[in-house]
Amino acid sequence: MKAARYYGPGDIRIDDIPEPVPKPGQVKIKVRSIAVCGSDLHAYLMLLWVSPVNEPNSITKEKLPVGIGHEFSGTIVDLGEDVDISHFSVGQHVVVEPLISCMSDYCASCSAGRRNVCPRMNFIGFAGWGGGMAEYITVDQELVHDLPPQIPLEIGAMMEPLAVGWHAVNRSEFKSGDNVLVVGAGPIGLLLIKVLQARGAAWVGVSEPANARRELALTLGANEVYNPLTANVSEEVRRVTDGIGADVVFECSGIPAGLDTAIQAVRARGNIMNVSVWENPPAFDVNHLMAREASFTAVIGYESRVFPELLKAVGEGKLDGIEPLITRKIALKDVVQKGFMTLLQEKETQIKILVQP
Amino acid sequence: MKAARYYGPGDIRIDDIPEPVPKPGQVKIKVRSIAVCGSDLHAYLMLLWVSPVNEPNSITKEKLPVGIGHEFSGTIVDLGEDVDISHFSVGQHVVVEPLISCMSDYCASCSAGRRNVCPRMNFIGFAGWGGGMAEYITVDQELVHDLPPQIPLEIGAMMEPLAVGWHAVNRSEFKSGDNVLVVGAGPIGLLLIKVLQARGAAWVGVSEPANARRELALTLGANEVYNPLTANVSEEVRRVTDGIGADVVFECSGIPAGLDTAIQAVRARGNIMNVSVWENPPAFDVNHLMAREASFTAVIGYESRVFPELLKAVGEGKLDGIEPLITRKIALKDVVQKGFMTLLQEKETQIKILVQP
Ligand SMILES: [Zn+2]
Ligand SMILES: [Zn+2]
Ligand SMILES: [Zn+2]
Ligand SMILES: [Zn+2]
Repeated sequence: MKAARYYGPGDIRIDDIPEPVPKPGQVKIKVRSIAVCGSDLHAYLMLLWVSPVNEPNSITKEKLPVGIGHEFSGTIVDLGEDVDISHFSVGQHVVVEPLISCMSDYCASCSAGRRNVCPRMNFIGFAGWGGGMAEYITVDQELVHDLPPQIPLEIGAMMEPLAVGWHAVNRSEFKSGDNVLVVGAGPIGLLLIKVLQARGAAWVGVSEPANARRELALTLGANEVYNPLTANVSEEVRRVTDGIGADVVFECSGIPAGLDTAIQAVRARGNIMNVSVWENPPAFDVNHLMAREASFTAVIGYESRVFPELLKAVGEGKLDGIEPLITRKIALKDVVQKGFMTLLQEKETQIKILVQP
Repeated sequence: MKAARYYGPGDIRIDDIPEPVPKPGQVKIKVRSIAVCGSDLHAYLMLLWVSPVNEPNSITKEKLPVGIGHEFSGTIVDLGEDVDISHFSVGQHVVVEPLISCMSDYCASCSAGRRNVCPRMNFIGFAGWGGGMAEYITVDQELVHDLPPQIPLEIGAMMEPLAVGWHAVNRSEFKSGDNVLVVGAGPIGLLLIKVLQARGAAWVGVSEPANARRELALTLGANEVYNPLTANVSEEVRRVTDGIGADVVFECSGIPAGLDTAIQAVRARGNIMNVSVWENPPAFDVNHLMAREASFTAVIGYESRVFPELLKAVGEGKLDGIEPLITRKIALKDVVQKGFMTLLQEKETQIKILVQP
């Protein structure tokens, strides 16, 4: 089968490799739709901490090259031994929770369903066990979730980044009725608008310098959008919130100016939830956070309860309307030129490029 | 009367000024013991944001020079009109909660007893209303608290920094039975050891480069002390906590290396409570915080419930044993040479220098 594999920065190849065979407890999935993620781009530009270069990954036992891609949907085409056939069957539409963790009984995190904070946490599509940019992948049944039948498989490819947003809201101090600022309208920031409104936000403002992304934020339902290059975002937010500030700010820009906006816009005793991965540790205005006694929290991935919660809400139609995030569809063979390169060159207008293996 | 007054950086003078007369609702206090604080030192070295230089402070209506000193105890010598005489009487030993705030009904923070996060929050001893480094001060009765009679007035001078520590513990995610790391054994870090043990910490470790301060930390009851210049503190903490890490870390060093230690030593889903004021925004390793989904919170001052809670615990003997923090006693006329200068020159060995006006 054809599979995109990651050999290191700047080196992703479409290889011809044997189709994977499901081990006991695994299902084999024909990948139908997979999105290129910012993390994939990062890996393409520079080596990530997750990459097993010299040593094999301690859980997957694999070294580079590894499969790439973790935001995907597909249909089940085969079941390994011991798969729960009361749940899984051939033809079923599914999405994958691509989290790798030690699963040891001695791991305080894994045994509490917090696999994402396992010290050995990693991802399918970065550290082995295959990747979604391939015709087929085999996955442990525990990581395979039903996509509600009325949801298109293309939308299914966005369940993984939606889960990141859902988990960020879970772990933030957000509650229904809150006024929220989202800083940065990349894929996660845009999906967060939907998640926040599904969960009862009273008002969602978005700060984003790119015109096209501010437009998309409005399309997705933001109440107000601000260009931080021309507006004083924290003052604007204070004006809208009777001088109080945002109850929760989601920092999704990953740039120091965005973090400053978050610190300035949050209310006294409010919460900043960081969803960004940072290229360098930013300067952090602790004194300003202190004067408001605000909290700063950060999330990675999702704990075990997130995919089921999210897919239930998706099945109930609570997250309808995310199609506009799909800005291009390409074939697997074109993933580097039309996927990675296009995302780098058309940063402001491209959001989710879908690959259809 | 004699009073130390702050004219700006490097300029504190002992002036002869009229004794203050209590306004309605105020009590007049003869200051018996006042400690020089790190914030006083900062003001001596460089202008603080709290200093009313060109504009009078919006609440006190005063400009420089202003009285200085906010950590003090004293005896009541006079009562203004309308003071609650069922509570206050001449001769009583008291301490002062030196927080200035707008007290407007329209202020969400002040009206909820969170005067410390009022947008106009400031301190007696920095922004007007007199200072503790004086023979007398008049203070609104709401800010005057009884010192339990068995507690020496010298110990009373440490109630204000103790309140900072008490509030930091209140606002942190600390709960009885937790393992805690304190980073930096300055006055607040040392007092935190006592507060944490009074509140049921299972284990308190302290990271501090200065030998004399590590010794003091042990005297105050720390379970373990580490020199971060020679030990890998986060590894040591993990070793003591079955590989898990500290439940809560109190960052009291105000230096980037201390913040890094805090981020490395905290457990998955743990909490870092920042009590430091920062000279410059530190580089913040958000990715590391993220990998653990830890939270970072910060406090300033104390909310209204803190002094009563603290003084009750002090009265019950739960914070006995802080005398060793008093490293010198001086007269008011010597406050600059033997107070501020000594603290700057003998940084490692001096903790609390008490002035006795
Ligand atoms: Zn992703
Ligand atoms: Zn684990
Ligand atoms: Zn102080
Ligand atoms: Zn106020």
